[in-house]
Order: sequence, then C-alpha cells, then structure tokens
Amino acid sequence: MLAALPHNHRIMNFDNLTRAWLNRIESKLDSVLPPGDRQPARLHEAMRYSVLGGGKRIRPVLVYATGEALGVDLARLDGPAAAIELMHAFSLVHDDLPAMDDDDLRRGRPTTHIAYDEATAILAADALQPLAFQVLATDPSMACDAQTRLKLIEQLAEACGSDGMTGGQSIDLSAEGRQLEADELELMYQLKTGRLLKVSVLSAAYCADLQHPLLPALERFVDAVGLAFQIKDDLLDIEGETAVIGKQQGADIQRGKATWPALFGMDAARATTQKLLDQALAELEVLGPEADGLRNVARYIVNRES
Amino acid sequence: MLAALPHNHRIMNFDNLTRAWLNRIESKLDSVLPPGDRQPARLHEAMRYSVLGGGKRIRPVLVYATGEALGVDLARLDGPAAAIELMHAFSLVHDDLPAMDDDDLRRGRPTTHIAYDEATAILAADALQPLAFQVLATDPSMACDAQTRLKLIEQLAEACGSDGMTGGQSIDLSAEGRQLEADELELMYQLKTGRLLKVSVLSAAYCADLQHPLLPALERFVDAVGLAFQIKDDLLDIEGETAVIGKQQGADIQRGKATWPALFGMDAARATTQKLLDQALAELEVLGPEADGLRNVARYIVNRES
Repeated sequence: MLAALPHNHRIMNFDNLTRAWLNRIESKLDSVLPPGDRQPARLHEAMRYSVLGGGKRIRPVLVYATGEALGVDLARLDGPAAAIELMHAFSLVHDDLPAMDDDDLRRGRPTTHIAYDEATAILAADALQPLAFQVLATDPSMACDAQTRLKLIEQLAEACGSDGMTGGQSIDLSAEGRQLEADELELMYQLKTGRLLKVSVLSAAYCADLQHPLLPALERFVDAVGLAFQIKDDLLDIEGETAVIGKQQGADIQRGKATWPALFGMDAARATTQKLLDQALAELEVLGPEADGLRNVARYIVNRES
Repeated sequence: MLAALPHNHRIMNFDNLTRAWLNRIESKLDSVLPPGDRQPARLHEAMRYSVLGGGKRIRPVLVYATGEALGVDLARLDGPAAAIELMHAFSLVHDDLPAMDDDDLRRGRPTTHIAYDEATAILAADALQPLAFQVLATDPSMACDAQTRLKLIEQLAEACGSDGMTGGQSIDLSAEGRQLEADELELMYQLKTGRLLKVSVLSAAYCADLQHPLLPALERFVDAVGLAFQIKDDLLDIEGETAVIGKQQGADIQRGKATWPALFGMDAARATTQKLLDQALAELEVLGPEADGLRNVARYIVNRES
C-alpha cells in the first residue's frame, strides 16, 4: 500500500519528481508572457517580474500530477497550468498592495509595487487576468474542443471572481482584528485558495474527459488537500514566527488573526491536516501507481517545511 | 441619402432611439451582477455601485446598433453588451485609484474608492473581469455555439490586456508631463479606448456570423469612430475648462497633456472628427435604413456636448 509508507520516505524525492513539471511551467509561462521589451515595456517587464519570480508552483504541479494520474498528454496541460498560475500571480500582486496587505517582500524579492510602482503593479496584475483567459481560449497545444475550453474558462472565471478568490480576499481583509467563527473561516479558506486549487485538479480532469467518472472523487480529494494546505500555511506562519522572534505559540494565537490554529489550537490543527491527508489519499485508492505523483503532492502540502 | 441629412436633425432623437437599448443593458447588468446582500456583501455592493451608477453606455449601444444593422436578435446581444460594459467599468474603477488618476468624482458621484475604500475598490474591479468572461462563456440568452463564444472571449481578452486597454492606460500614465508624438498618441488612443469600442461592434457581427462579409467594413467603421470619439473627448475636456475657468484655449494646449488638439490645434481636431465621421458613414453605405441606429451613434459620438 503506497499510502501506508512513511511520509518522509515518500516526499524526500519530491524535488526530483516535480523538477520536470517545474521546468515545463517556467518555460510555458515565459512563452505566453509578452516579451519585456515590447511596448509598453515597463508594464510588460512588471508582468514578467510578477510571474517569473519563483514560487512553489503548487497549482501547476497539481495540474500535471492529475494529468499524469489520468493519462493526459502533459503538453495539453501547459496552457491550463499557465493560465491558473497567471491568475494566482495576479492575486498575489494585488494582495501585496499598500491598500491591502502592504507587503514589501515576496519570495525574498521586493513585491511588484516596490520594484516598480503602485500604478504599474495594479496594471500589470490587471493584464495577467485577460492573458489567462486568452491562453485558455487559444493555446494550440491544448488540442481541446471548444466545449472543453469553455468549461475551463467558466470554472477559472468562477473560481477567481467575487464568489471565489477575490471574495475570499475581501473576507480576509474584513476579518482583520476579529476572530471568525469556524464556518466563516472555512468559507474564507475555500474561496481564497481552495477554489483555485480545485480548478487545478479539475482542469486536468476535464482535459481527459468532460464527463470523467473520477471527477467527484478528485473533487473530494482536492477539497481535503485545499483545506489542509491552508491550515498548514497557518501552522508554518506561527511556527516560523516562534523560531524567529522567540514568542510563545500562545502569543501568536492571541494576536486575533483569523486562523485555524487560533480557533482550535496547534495540536488539533496538526491532527486535522493529517486526517485531511488520509481522506484525500483514500479518494485516490482506485488509481494505481500512475497517481503516485498526485499522492506525493498531497503529502508535500501537509508535510512541507515552508 | 441618409448621410447627407444635417447632423443635428439626425441626432436630436438620439435619446429616444437609444432608450430601449439603455433599458436592456441596465436590466442585464443588474441581473448578471451578484445581489448586494450576498456575502461578501461589501464587495458585492461595491461591484454594483461601480457598474450601475449611470454612464453613457456607448459600448453596449454600439453592440445593439450593430446587431440591429445586421439583423441579430437583440436578446442574443445582452450577454456580450454586459460583458463589455463590465470590463469598461473595471477599467474606470482602477483608473480612478489614488495611485493612478486619483479622481474623487465620476458621473457626479464619489468614485468607488471614495464611496467604499481603496482595497474594496481594487477587489470589486478585479471581480468584474472574471464576471465578464463568465457571462460570455455561459449566458444562455446568447444562444451561441461554443466556437462563437470562444471568439468573443478571445477578442475581449486581447482588447483588455497589456496589448489593449491596460497597455493604453500604462502609456497614458507614462506620458504625463511630456507630449507624445502623433503616432504614439494614436497608439495610446487605440489601445485605451479603440480596442474595446471595436470589440463592441465586432462582437455583434460575430454573433450574426463568424465569417460575416461586412466584418472588414465594420472594422474600418469603428476604427474611424473610435479615433473620433477620443479626439472629441479631448475637445470637450478643453472646451469644458474654457467655459468654467475662462482660460484661453491656448493655455489648455500648453499644459502639456498628451492630446490631439494639443498637437494639432482645436480647429484641425474638429475638422478631423468630421472627416472621420464621413469615413465611418461611408463604410455603412452598403447597409440600408436598418443601419440608421449605427449611423446615429457615430454622429452622436462626434457631435455630443458631454
């Protein structure tokens, strides 16, 4: 039983397993982004800076891993993977703005509005959105019928609008300084990150078959993984701070930020991520070793150190 | 000859002619926007405030007028008209932000970031973009095949990205305080407003037939109208200020803002708008009285007082 192997054994080769996927997505993003010397050059440079500056590429990795599990030619998934990562990058640039989270650093580099200026950052992200839809509508390597392209466009649009990612960011901002109830918190997680993670998995499945029989199982898989991802993010945030500033974990929990550990405590949060991982892996039981990549992504998400 | 009638005679009934179209678009926008009491309510309210606050609705009017000229059932055009207006509203909200044009008033009301707050304004506009694509991908009243929907999505995405509207705004910001050359200025006009006006006309034509024989003529029509629209905007801006603050027109021309009248003078600018109108109307000569609405929109754009 693959799922019964120790987590550490399974994820120690995660970098090797994902390297080919990461190379694919970097190359695809580079090719769909306008060249940095095309006019207006400052805008195009800022778009490239915002997207090509590293990052874990969790969403494209989920696209490829799902495709591999379902036997989809990975070249057909470069377009969907790129479109989803463009949307993710758009959201990060706007979330970092002074009027939002006001972050100066991301991935160890100045955020886009610091590296360029606020207007350029707003516009660069604004231009990433239509680029994502353009890729889904036209990318030739997808080799999809029009109906499948429309389905991918529809679900990406839904996942990124006010009932998805943008709505989640709005709830997150409005929640600052007050503790959310558990159901509000779970809704915020689901909208802010869960929806786009789900699109990553389902896009690959739709490319296999719009009526793929495993769609419901994959949806449950990614729902569990998505929630685990967000709880793990909260845990890392708190543990990271503990290491750096030497505060007790209790102090972090008291600061009033809406997080799962703040509501339920660190131990319960850790136990929940492991329970969600088990649930997620159980959904993949009908799949053979071709789904090992997808299993490893799930394990990585729960056991990662950063 | 319709085109030979005096302009004022033709446009005095413009309001009557467009009222039915304006009612259509207001009703459609109201129905595709999420209700203001749906969570996150502040975001949804701000989306509605940004879109439903009036405006000339030139783009939807162009969609309907073109559809009428080509015999398209107007119900099929409600979706494209709404999608284009949502994208226009998105651009206005971001253009008004403090980091951009820093405008407090639009259409006689506080801009979205004044009425709400900056973060909400950024997010509300961000959520209008995917809503536009969602409408094009799914709106049932469009009664389009998947290929036509994809074409509408593709051209809207292209028109709004870094090679379109967003790129135009970027050039506009970078041009502040310096006078652009004529070709740079025309490119900025074309990207910032021309591309979306063109989408308005072509979307209706694509709904008639993806290979409609009049597509090239309609494209030349809207290219001329689009440039005339922008020059007229510049003229109104200068004439408006002259009336209000009693400055000489020369003072306005000297202030260094990148405009057509500043480059060529007021009289030449006025003459150019009339010449462009004649060119535009000539492109419609093969069409009969069913294109009178479209002719009137072109005349209105050049002869309007605000």
